[in-house]
Amino acid sequence: MAAAEFWYEFASTYSYPAAMRVASLAEERSVALGWRPFLLGPIFAAQGWRDSPFNIYPAKGRYMWRDMQRVCDGLELPLKRPDPFPQNSLLAARAALALEGEERANFSRQVYAAEFGEGLPIADRAVIAALLAKLGLDPEAVLGRAESDANKARLKAECARAAELGIIGAPCIVTDDREVFWGNDRLEQGLDWAAGRRA
Amino acid sequence: MAAAEFWYEFASTYSYPAAMRVASLAEERSVALGWRPFLLGPIFAAQGWRDSPFNIYPAKGRYMWRDMQRVCDGLELPLKRPDPFPQNSLLAARAALALEGEERANFSRQVYAAEFGEGLPIADRAVIAALLAKLGLDPEAVLGRAESDANKARLKAECARAAELGIIGAPCIVTDDREVFWGNDRLEQGLDWAAGRRA
Repeated sequence: MAAAEFWYEFASTYSYPAAMRVASLAEERSVALGWRPFLLGPIFAAQGWRDSPFNIYPAKGRYMWRDMQRVCDGLELPLKRPDPFPQNSLLAARAALALEGEERANFSRQVYAAEFGEGLPIADRAVIAALLAKLGLDPEAVLGRAESDANKARLKAECARAAELGIIGAPCIVTDDREVFWGNDRLEQGLDWAAGRRA
Repeated sequence: MAAAEFWYEFASTYSYPAAMRVASLAEERSVALGWRPFLLGPIFAAQGWRDSPFNIYPAKGRYMWRDMQRVCDGLELPLKRPDPFPQNSLLAARAALALEGEERANFSRQVYAAEFGEGLPIADRAVIAALLAKLGLDPEAVLGRAESDANKARLKAECARAAELGIIGAPCIVTDDREVFWGNDRLEQGLDWAAGRRA
């Protein structure tokens, strides 16, 4: 079966609609999808950015928020801007990485729905714990695994892998032959590529 | 009839496939298309950039060139990287603005084909003159109009208008109700919006 990876960052706005769309797009193409949470912070820092480019460049931010509204309207997804933006996504990324398979995918969608659908602060441990409980998981057990040294090291390795793949933003589809497709608007092309439909 | 504007910059890589696709996409949707050449330089300068972000941020540049290759392969368009990149696009933009209607659209497609299909230096007056001659136009007459004070001022006004519209990159589709859709991969959505298909 064809396979692809979905690389996403919880602070990333366009990763929200992408996370909501990607599973069914992969299924339609019979592509097995791996969910790969990571942090853009180290990648942005390497470019000299210490904040979201949407904050550093206000015109870019204005464009993005208007575009996100249109994208979410088109998908009938609610959009509420979290404050502050971007949210610190470290805990959410660690928790996602401490889960596997469908649990990771379900938790990740819940995080995005809370953050960008309801505007909730995902840096808040109680918010993450409540989302885990909602999924029938034991919040303290998952957060304990999330904050273990092994899991922290694993997230660092994932970030290093993202940089090595040439990832410069989120979300991305990465194929087995190391092609990177960046953007919510490129999911279809990336998954088509993974499925062997390259026209 | 529904209408939309296609804003493009001759130095912009993604404007090349966009310019080759946009007329038929607009026609399919019965959208009357206005071709609006402009310069990104002043917009980039306002963000503190004195070069293409694809040069300032090498990882972004590597991603873009690989992505452009895939995009052009998919459209069966040749791709040859012009040297230097980006090309100075001032003369081409002035010449395009000195033409109207189909002549402007045809000339613009020829410029992109020369620059990114053949890797020719479009900052070179002889290259632009040859493209004009190929279209059956009088190169000296068009270049004379292109470099008139009135046309230079007109291009400046177009750049100011782009900034005012919130344009932050090229290409863009701009609709009558001032919605901006940025990117070769957003032409369809922008033209759908213009045509009144907003789902």
